[in-house]
Amino acid sequence: MPRIVMKFGGTSVADLDRIRHVAARVKRQVDAGDQVAVVVSAMAGATNQLVAWCQALSPLHDAREYDAVLATGEQVTTGLLAIALQAIGVEARSWAGWQIPLRTDDSHGAARILAIEAADLVSRMQSGQVAVVAGFQGLAPDNRIATLGRGGSDTSAVALAAAIAADRCDIYTDVDGVYTTDPRMVPRARRLEKIAYEEMLELASVGAKVLQTRSVELAMKSRVRVRVLSSFGDPDNNSQGTLLVDEDEIVEKEIVTGIAYSRDEAKVTLRHVPDRPGIATAVFGPLSAAHVNVDMIVQNISAEGTTDMTFTIGRADLPRVIDCLERERDKIGFSTLLTDRDVAKISVVGVGMRSHAGIANTMFRTLAEKSINIQVISTSEIKVSVLIAQDYTELAVRALHTAYGLDAA
Amino acid sequence: MPRIVMKFGGTSVADLDRIRHVAARVKRQVDAGDQVAVVVSAMAGATNQLVAWCQALSPLHDAREYDAVLATGEQVTTGLLAIALQAIGVEARSWAGWQIPLRTDDSHGAARILAIEAADLVSRMQSGQVAVVAGFQGLAPDNRIATLGRGGSDTSAVALAAAIAADRCDIYTDVDGVYTTDPRMVPRARRLEKIAYEEMLELASVGAKVLQTRSVELAMKSRVRVRVLSSFGDPDNNSQGTLLVDEDEIVEKEIVTGIAYSRDEAKVTLRHVPDRPGIATAVFGPLSAAHVNVDMIVQNISAEGTTDMTFTIGRADLPRVIDCLERERDKIGFSTLLTDRDVAKISVVGVGMRSHAGIANTMFRTLAEKSINIQVISTSEIKVSVLIAQDYTELAVRALHTAYGLDAA
Repeated sequence: MPRIVMKFGGTSVADLDRIRHVAARVKRQVDAGDQVAVVVSAMAGATNQLVAWCQALSPLHDAREYDAVLATGEQVTTGLLAIALQAIGVEARSWAGWQIPLRTDDSHGAARILAIEAADLVSRMQSGQVAVVAGFQGLAPDNRIATLGRGGSDTSAVALAAAIAADRCDIYTDVDGVYTTDPRMVPRARRLEKIAYEEMLELASVGAKVLQTRSVELAMKSRVRVRVLSSFGDPDNNSQGTLLVDEDEIVEKEIVTGIAYSRDEAKVTLRHVPDRPGIATAVFGPLSAAHVNVDMIVQNISAEGTTDMTFTIGRADLPRVIDCLERERDKIGFSTLLTDRDVAKISVVGVGMRSHAGIANTMFRTLAEKSINIQVISTSEIKVSVLIAQDYTELAVRALHTAYGLDAA
Repeated sequence: MPRIVMKFGGTSVADLDRIRHVAARVKRQVDAGDQVAVVVSAMAGATNQLVAWCQALSPLHDAREYDAVLATGEQVTTGLLAIALQAIGVEARSWAGWQIPLRTDDSHGAARILAIEAADLVSRMQSGQVAVVAGFQGLAPDNRIATLGRGGSDTSAVALAAAIAADRCDIYTDVDGVYTTDPRMVPRARRLEKIAYEEMLELASVGAKVLQTRSVELAMKSRVRVRVLSSFGDPDNNSQGTLLVDEDEIVEKEIVTGIAYSRDEAKVTLRHVPDRPGIATAVFGPLSAAHVNVDMIVQNISAEGTTDMTFTIGRADLPRVIDCLERERDKIGFSTLLTDRDVAKISVVGVGMRSHAGIANTMFRTLAEKSINIQVISTSEIKVSVLIAQDYTELAVRALHTAYGLDAA
């Protein structure tokens, strides 16, 4: 008997009608003969309200108390969904993180899952009871509630699927799958039927906000088959979403799978940095200590003993980065600090790249034809990213989507 | 070092400002050198919202799921109060019912407390940490959350006070103590400095809605000294409220301690009931099976083989009672069913009655002087209650308050 984990986010359980809708969808899965566990988030808005209360009482609140407060959001939806399921004749019960238990480390507010002791939950699933599980939360070693951090419910769902050896983990969201690019920007974007974990990771981290990076990493590590699909619309006419699978399962590999973009970047340039060994550590050591994620890094060739160093960071980190670098100015010895917030990162992703040359060149040529200047380039095995002026984002994404043959017929 | 339990209800923690106010009050107690546990209810309105959601999804919802949903209300306030306490330099942590654990039976929705395993909580209190405890909830034998039913937070507080051998349990509420009668009705009502448990029980059950009956019973059984006082106003100028104590602790016993009234009653009369053995069971057996609480019962002397039977019930139960009796009409064999919703019960309460005759007669004479007709009388060792027409409630209460010498100077 197939065993399925279904995960519904906050917008899917935002009110009682939507909870009933979710219940109906779960019933279909049960009626199809599956053993089902459902992972739910808090009702949309509930978590924000709870966070606001904690913040208002103390900006530097105890993370353990913050977790105790926040975890109630998911507890409410599990109870309500269990009631909604029972009301339509589906046997169900709610499970808070501590009841399973789903054990985490003690990094309250951003805890990592250590183990899920799911024997009791599985035996109840085997007897035909739907397990309605609170996402985002677990039990820390000190017998207190820990939350996994924002978006942690995806991670809960994938971890649960791995723990109970589920055949599939269906993540219901407000889009009906993963597209070749953002369909709001490119109407001819196509839904992908399958995508490799590695590709999804690159797409997730560069701006295709369908799944949390962490949950994709976990799915890849645990080889959980994850399906992304829409929680809205008629289930009968519903598309099958997008299945995340191992690269080997994708027989007809496209060279390029998708085009991603991010407008949350900022560019920082240090002029006339002394070109000496250890200079990179002098720049990036302090940034790392300040928990700043540095993305693309470019260093020009040396001229007269100095060089220019350019890198990108999350735009929200910019004030912190400026502050940090100005404090280190004497140690590093740069002449000028330039910043640019009007940038966008465009990425071309595909596992097929590994065996195909010329992918990057197609990108450069396509952008050149549109007179778009490339400011920074970075590449990985399955991705080429460029930084361009933000105004050209749409133009670049559309042109690349066409150039790589991704447009829907 | 004195050990104190402080309990704050929903209106006392209704918003962040009030939670800060509660935190300041707890700090005063800590600064005075006490070990403190605080029991809190959910923010006013929160529980009603959660109940409404459960009801809307299914009128016959699973009580275990209902409990899981409702218990979140108290969990939120414990976390928020712990944060507010830490923000003003008071060491504190939140405790959900399952974390202590406070063990209950499996009567979900109206569970009884079986045991409080408070060793861990006490050792933390001894190290100077304020325990912020979620009222109204515990852990049932099946490892699921159980709630104690409405008003259960008072009971939680008293049970906790008993379990940790607290010197006192302070119940903060929206009145500053227990009065000789309702001060909104009788401006000359006086606050009682002390009241015996037994008196409080009679006052609570007949309409002085200061404390839950169940919590008073538990306090009496466990000999917990309970103080009722106001959570509002300046703590420096605050009255000391009313202390619930053992009868023996009250040296100067008043003959009558207070006058209570209830307008939530209804009167039911069965005319021409056959006067045969077992008739009372025929009437009250079905009502008991329908979980109807019957209060005062009067049976007239027999005339021509039949009698009239009158009793009072909670007004909300009236439709159920009518339905129940009509179904039993043939078995019981009464001629007519009369009901009256326009009644009030007036009670005179005092442990001093035990040793004083004539208390009831003073009541009857006083009411007669005001031309108030007495419909039903019932007495207990420390209470005399009469049923009168509701219109005369204020007149009766004021006249009795004066007649028993309770008016403030």
